[in-house]
Amino acid sequence: MTSSPAPQLHPDVQPFVFMLGTWRGRGEGSYPTIDDFTYMEEVSFSHVGKPFLAYTQKTRHGETGLSLHAESGYWRFPAIELVIAQPTGIMEALSGDFRPNDSGGRFEFTCPDVVVTDTAVRVDRTIRRFTFEGDTLTYDMAMAAVGEPMTHHLSATLDRVVP
Amino acid sequence: MTSSPAPQLHPDVQPFVFMLGTWRGRGEGSYPTIDDFTYMEEVSFSHVGKPFLAYTQKTRHGETGLSLHAESGYWRFPAIELVIAQPTGIMEALSGDFRPNDSGGRFEFTCPDVVVTDTAVRVDRTIRRFTFEGDTLTYDMAMAAVGEPMTHHLSATLDRVVP
Repeated sequence: MTSSPAPQLHPDVQPFVFMLGTWRGRGEGSYPTIDDFTYMEEVSFSHVGKPFLAYTQKTRHGETGLSLHAESGYWRFPAIELVIAQPTGIMEALSGDFRPNDSGGRFEFTCPDVVVTDTAVRVDRTIRRFTFEGDTLTYDMAMAAVGEPMTHHLSATLDRVVP
Repeated sequence: MTSSPAPQLHPDVQPFVFMLGTWRGRGEGSYPTIDDFTYMEEVSFSHVGKPFLAYTQKTRHGETGLSLHAESGYWRFPAIELVIAQPTGIMEALSGDFRPNDSGGRFEFTCPDVVVTDTAVRVDRTIRRFTFEGDTLTYDMAMAAVGEPMTHHLSATLDRVVP
């Protein structure tokens, strides 16, 4: 099934074609309840001709190279919605808005009700911001979790390495 | 980041090693509100040395070959939990149980509260059953959606094509 010819981009995704590809870079994380850390990250956006982009993300520890986090999901257009599943048992359904810039644009998403499985760590709310400018992607993420109020958690800068 | 050596399987995943690989096959779908349909499917389970398996699924129309559905998520062990994001804006956090057989086993998962984005079709509850027997995977899925009670929706049989 993976050998089929590439489908045409869906018209609803056309305004967001600047997202497509694989991005790599570095980030740093902090939270009141844990030690600060750095990480290497790979993010990918791909399409199948339908009005969404498939999203995958993987991080490794900045020093040891060991797998840290992963997540996967879908960016829905034109609604500007984002659904993300995480192996930590955390799921976010986010609504957002988009402001274009000269070579991309900025998304800001909020998730007012994070869903977690029975055995997962408690996360209540998240905010995620993504800025695309040419071949650079920066993002930051804040969360209200484990009893803490909304607090900055992650920020990273990535470069597009595969179109 | 994808060129790192393959990590060792996590001990919590070891009892479920029979799931690993890529599976392909055919399925059929029905629901009171839509026409019956058939589909071709590819499912993949992979690991990064942590206590979960990454799960991806894609289907194409049985006759036209066009992309139909996709989903991605994670199977969490030893809790037997499953989180799935779908580009339709539907997210399921499922809890399950597992009964081993001679060459695999059977999972049965329920999701009592499906989460949907603002613009998604309403789905309330789902049941998903997966049976692994050697190189054969069969599953079925039922859902209560768009006002219908819990009703059979999908069933498929797949063969492992990549270990």
